[in-house]
Amino acid sequence: MTSTSTRSRTSPPKPPNAPARLGFAKGTARWQDIIENPEIDLVSITAPNALHKEMSLAAIAAGKHVYCEKPLAPLAQDALEMTLAAEAKGVKTQVGFNYLCNPMLQTAREMIRAGELGEIRGYRGIHCEDYMADANGPFTFRHDPAGGGALADIGSHALATAEFLCGPVTKVMGDCVTMIAERPDGRGSRRAVTVDDVGRAFLRFENGASGSIEGNWIATGRKMQHDFEVYGTKGALAFSQEHFNVLHYFDTTDRKGRQGFRRIEASPDHSPYGLFCVAAGHQIGFNDLKAIEVAGYVNAIAGASPEPFNFRAGLRIQTLVETILTSSREQRWLTVGQAGPRGTA
Amino acid sequence: MTSTSTRSRTSPPKPPNAPARLGFAKGTARWQDIIENPEIDLVSITAPNALHKEMSLAAIAAGKHVYCEKPLAPLAQDALEMTLAAEAKGVKTQVGFNYLCNPMLQTAREMIRAGELGEIRGYRGIHCEDYMADANGPFTFRHDPAGGGALADIGSHALATAEFLCGPVTKVMGDCVTMIAERPDGRGSRRAVTVDDVGRAFLRFENGASGSIEGNWIATGRKMQHDFEVYGTKGALAFSQEHFNVLHYFDTTDRKGRQGFRRIEASPDHSPYGLFCVAAGHQIGFNDLKAIEVAGYVNAIAGASPEPFNFRAGLRIQTLVETILTSSREQRWLTVGQAGPRGTA
Amino acid sequence: MTSTSTRSRTSPPKPPNAPARLGFAKGTARWQDIIENPEIDLVSITAPNALHKEMSLAAIAAGKHVYCEKPLAPLAQDALEMTLAAEAKGVKTQVGFNYLCNPMLQTAREMIRAGELGEIRGYRGIHCEDYMADANGPFTFRHDPAGGGALADIGSHALATAEFLCGPVTKVMGDCVTMIAERPDGRGSRRAVTVDDVGRAFLRFENGASGSIEGNWIATGRKMQHDFEVYGTKGALAFSQEHFNVLHYFDTTDRKGRQGFRRIEASPDHSPYGLFCVAAGHQIGFNDLKAIEVAGYVNAIAGASPEPFNFRAGLRIQTLVETILTSSREQRWLTVGQAGPRGTA
Amino acid sequence: MTSTSTRSRTSPPKPPNAPARLGFAKGTARWQDIIENPEIDLVSITAPNALHKEMSLAAIAAGKHVYCEKPLAPLAQDALEMTLAAEAKGVKTQVGFNYLCNPMLQTAREMIRAGELGEIRGYRGIHCEDYMADANGPFTFRHDPAGGGALADIGSHALATAEFLCGPVTKVMGDCVTMIAERPDGRGSRRAVTVDDVGRAFLRFENGASGSIEGNWIATGRKMQHDFEVYGTKGALAFSQEHFNVLHYFDTTDRKGRQGFRRIEASPDHSPYGLFCVAAGHQIGFNDLKAIEVAGYVNAIAGASPEPFNFRAGLRIQTLVETILTSSREQRWLTVGQAGPRGTA
Repeated sequence: MTSTSTRSRTSPPKPPNAPARLGFAKGTARWQDIIENPEIDLVSITAPNALHKEMSLAAIAAGKHVYCEKPLAPLAQDALEMTLAAEAKGVKTQVGFNYLCNPMLQTAREMIRAGELGEIRGYRGIHCEDYMADANGPFTFRHDPAGGGALADIGSHALATAEFLCGPVTKVMGDCVTMIAERPDGRGSRRAVTVDDVGRAFLRFENGASGSIEGNWIATGRKMQHDFEVYGTKGALAFSQEHFNVLHYFDTTDRKGRQGFRRIEASPDHSPYGLFCVAAGHQIGFNDLKAIEVAGYVNAIAGASPEPFNFRAGLRIQTLVETILTSSREQRWLTVGQAGPRGTA
Repeated sequence: MTSTSTRSRTSPPKPPNAPARLGFAKGTARWQDIIENPEIDLVSITAPNALHKEMSLAAIAAGKHVYCEKPLAPLAQDALEMTLAAEAKGVKTQVGFNYLCNPMLQTAREMIRAGELGEIRGYRGIHCEDYMADANGPFTFRHDPAGGGALADIGSHALATAEFLCGPVTKVMGDCVTMIAERPDGRGSRRAVTVDDVGRAFLRFENGASGSIEGNWIATGRKMQHDFEVYGTKGALAFSQEHFNVLHYFDTTDRKGRQGFRRIEASPDHSPYGLFCVAAGHQIGFNDLKAIEVAGYVNAIAGASPEPFNFRAGLRIQTLVETILTSSREQRWLTVGQAGPRGTA
Repeated sequence: MTSTSTRSRTSPPKPPNAPARLGFAKGTARWQDIIENPEIDLVSITAPNALHKEMSLAAIAAGKHVYCEKPLAPLAQDALEMTLAAEAKGVKTQVGFNYLCNPMLQTAREMIRAGELGEIRGYRGIHCEDYMADANGPFTFRHDPAGGGALADIGSHALATAEFLCGPVTKVMGDCVTMIAERPDGRGSRRAVTVDDVGRAFLRFENGASGSIEGNWIATGRKMQHDFEVYGTKGALAFSQEHFNVLHYFDTTDRKGRQGFRRIEASPDHSPYGLFCVAAGHQIGFNDLKAIEVAGYVNAIAGASPEPFNFRAGLRIQTLVETILTSSREQRWLTVGQAGPRGTA
Repeated sequence: MTSTSTRSRTSPPKPPNAPARLGFAKGTARWQDIIENPEIDLVSITAPNALHKEMSLAAIAAGKHVYCEKPLAPLAQDALEMTLAAEAKGVKTQVGFNYLCNPMLQTAREMIRAGELGEIRGYRGIHCEDYMADANGPFTFRHDPAGGGALADIGSHALATAEFLCGPVTKVMGDCVTMIAERPDGRGSRRAVTVDDVGRAFLRFENGASGSIEGNWIATGRKMQHDFEVYGTKGALAFSQEHFNVLHYFDTTDRKGRQGFRRIEASPDHSPYGLFCVAAGHQIGFNDLKAIEVAGYVNAIAGASPEPFNFRAGLRIQTLVETILTSSREQRWLTVGQAGPRGTA
């Protein structure tokens, strides 16, 4: 589920005239109409998580390209099935991890790959918000035991960023905690919550670094604390999504007495920022991140480039999430499987 | 000139196929074609400043609504003529002061108007960038003695914000300084620059407050330092365009030991942010400010609301700029004329 | 070891005239002279960790009050012995955890205890520096397998702050990693390092909250990142030692559209700041924290108040450190013993 | 008046046993006792401004070194007399401008002098606090028409920093405003206030740069906003006293895409920080600035170095303040006299 829809806690049935009201030429309340329509080449699935699999498989079978909101499916096993189906059919796929589309994150990755930080030693990533901090907030599909929870919902962003920057995670030790044990069920009663409100993990990366992440949806006061620090032998980066047009960079080769984290502002030097603003300081917004994401996908469909974040990449994140949840439950370190949905000790 | 085009220092002739290259269905290199086309209701003028008047008057005469980039005209006298023409013809007009469209600035104004800060006593505004800091940057139309200079180009934003928040400025004392006395003329030689690189002013507001502004385009390292602080008897606000989704608010009624500037993040509580993002923390970007600006204008044309910043408002800013420049030249305080282009001592 | 001496990587033998050179009236190179001197009531031990026990026990036996740098001893078992000796003898003791003496941390604790944050749900603390980031930095006593490592050296500060604010930690899961496997031994060769460069832990608090800490001495670019965030049902606090005269406070009862972390500046409202500066904004420094710490100890000796952080408190931190190290080695959660040196599963 | 005493708005008569109560061995309520005591070599004058001259002249006549709080005297004419007397007698003098003793300001000056910023073009300095923001705060000696006001009290710090960094100011244009026209006189009535609550000035420096300062003691919410930015052809510096262990530095020679203000933390590389803390990040406090100031003065008396900020330097600041006040009153630019107390047009 992308962050755009993260906080719509309830989904009242749409009135029948929704398309007209929202300015669409056409609309339907029967999703199969879209699958069956030969004029449609690309399907975007933003339905509740539980429907992702059925809809995706139908669309793939019909030969359509599929953009699916995260998580790809509540269970990694299902995400794997969807991924294999898409790859067999040869359609292009996309999962919505728009934060990675930030030019400053692209810059961070380029810096790391180019060796500007030297050898990477440590990583600390978080994604903390407070949209579930109110214990009287209702039980929603995000609390569904199958695929719900803070780790899956936003910790997944922290995991995606960690691998985007530092490469594959090989081992994890999870700590997933439920703090609000029940919530209003919308019918005057309360319903038990079993998913995590806070999901933490220790990480080992293939490159030898160690690190940690935290996903927390009851972090009172925090609205978009998708932050990280990465420490290398020659430099370091610090980032906060609260000011996402800025990347902080420490260069150990700066001369004595003049060293310090540089506050680099997004500029046309950080592609594709220049497609949005002609100079530093103007700043792109959340919707521009979405535009970059979708543009990358459209270019991939047009054959110009690989998909920015396809079903296999989405499966990878699901696998990480599921392995961490299992690790937490079993209270032991687990190895992250390369392709499968479940880690092995 | 809006900030979007602020840094395009040179304007090479467009190749003849620009419309196609840029994805437009139609195009013309002869601006009169647009004026003469009866199917066109609204004209957007982003040509160099010197052409604003001629184009605007022609469009107004043809009964078209006109969006004109700032400054409305190099001279307030011309801006007045354009304003009167538009008002006589009854067309809707707009000048590009998009920073005022920021939901956090709207919130700031509402807070001030509602008395949340008490009586306003002091104001300090700046707009500092470094896009002219390189002495080898070429002479451009921004250096034109008629209407050029840092005060007109970006100090005007600081002035617009000052009046937007605190109401009319009544008196000014200017200090406009040229630091880079000549620049490459693009033909191998150098040309004298007479416009200001830094434009400062002391201000008196109708509400009794005093204040200051600075426009500075040689502020090394600064990319978008459009900042202000406003001090009232009950509270204060601080803002930086470098993080324009945030407003800092000090409330003197917070209890002892718990007082401090609050870092308020833009959220759906700050209209119209909610039209862009469903929750705090996501953040809008520069282009969203433009969208808000243009939406307001289109609504005004549709009759739903007054123009957000029409030619008369643009004239007002030109008048302020011109009065400050005159004040600086004459080294004395000047009263800002209410309607006319020139202050009187 | 307090932070004041944290970076003195090597301890060359002092020249015989050190007392005179440093402005002391007397001095001795034989520590037993101090113990045997009946005119001395209080002994401050800043010798290498390995000597803490022997010196402390001798001083206690002589009936002297003892201030000992952290860690109290390399092993919690030894720290326990020292604690019991001091308690039996009735002398007053102190261990150097000066960061807790910050008025803003005192304020944070008072706010939590007074319920201003509501029920505490989550905690995240770090203490990251880069003084061991250079792989060519020599092997020192801080790398001693008995009691050395980042967790013991600075992670201990993060643990002390966590308990200071949120109360007892009951269970831990550690992740302690050696990244720089060998260092110059100062004799032209290299020596294997077995202690942790990064020590992380998941935490469970007696009050029901969960949390994490990280101690990291290879955090490139960071000089004093002793930071925390604590999330409650009614509010939150955020703090960074990089600006330790400031505490950030989010109050969920602030009205809609005006909520945000408040940047509270240290002032005479935050005792004992007023003993150092007459108004907010002036700011105390590191040495003032030490002054507060020592003043508290002296007052305790004078009978006016309990010791701020005595040997038993130091033992507690050693116990936490040791339990986390064991947990990491055994890869399982451990319960923290209340008095003893070693956790139990 | 140094900031330490800035907020002690009233000075009730000390009880006769003040020395004992405060821990001094001796004391007197008759200041002449100190002057007449031949055992006293150095006199520190912290009495109300109106007494500075009489006390200083008496102490100088008695051959004593004199440390006098700022302002040296309410009128520059008196400050000149004091300066000449001290110079004639050959005693060492000091005026309390402790903010200049900050190692980061010393570093800033060294960087500017070494050409690291290139040619200096612009300066913006402020010193804003809110200790007079309450209109019900009583009339004090700080409101004395002779020498009182925000410009003299704290704007003087902004002026001292401006000249410390950029060298002599040659011309000024002042704007000094009274916003709170009367205050309680402490006897149940109200008394008219004629001094400035906000004092602003445009500046011209001998080095060709232009700039501005603002002193404001009704800046609601601000506690110690002694900030500056200085822009050169090769770099820039930004500083805030709110975090005075940090200096922000922009280097235009950093490579494209990696430029940004560096957050330099005070460290032993920035002398004399290392005398207080052994490593970066620990931070010095306000009282350490005072210690540096007094150490410099004591060294000067011992003959080791020139006085850091003697009476002539204090006179210089008084001259600047007085010239700005006159400029504001006469509404015209004034040249700052080199030695005399009054500017000339």
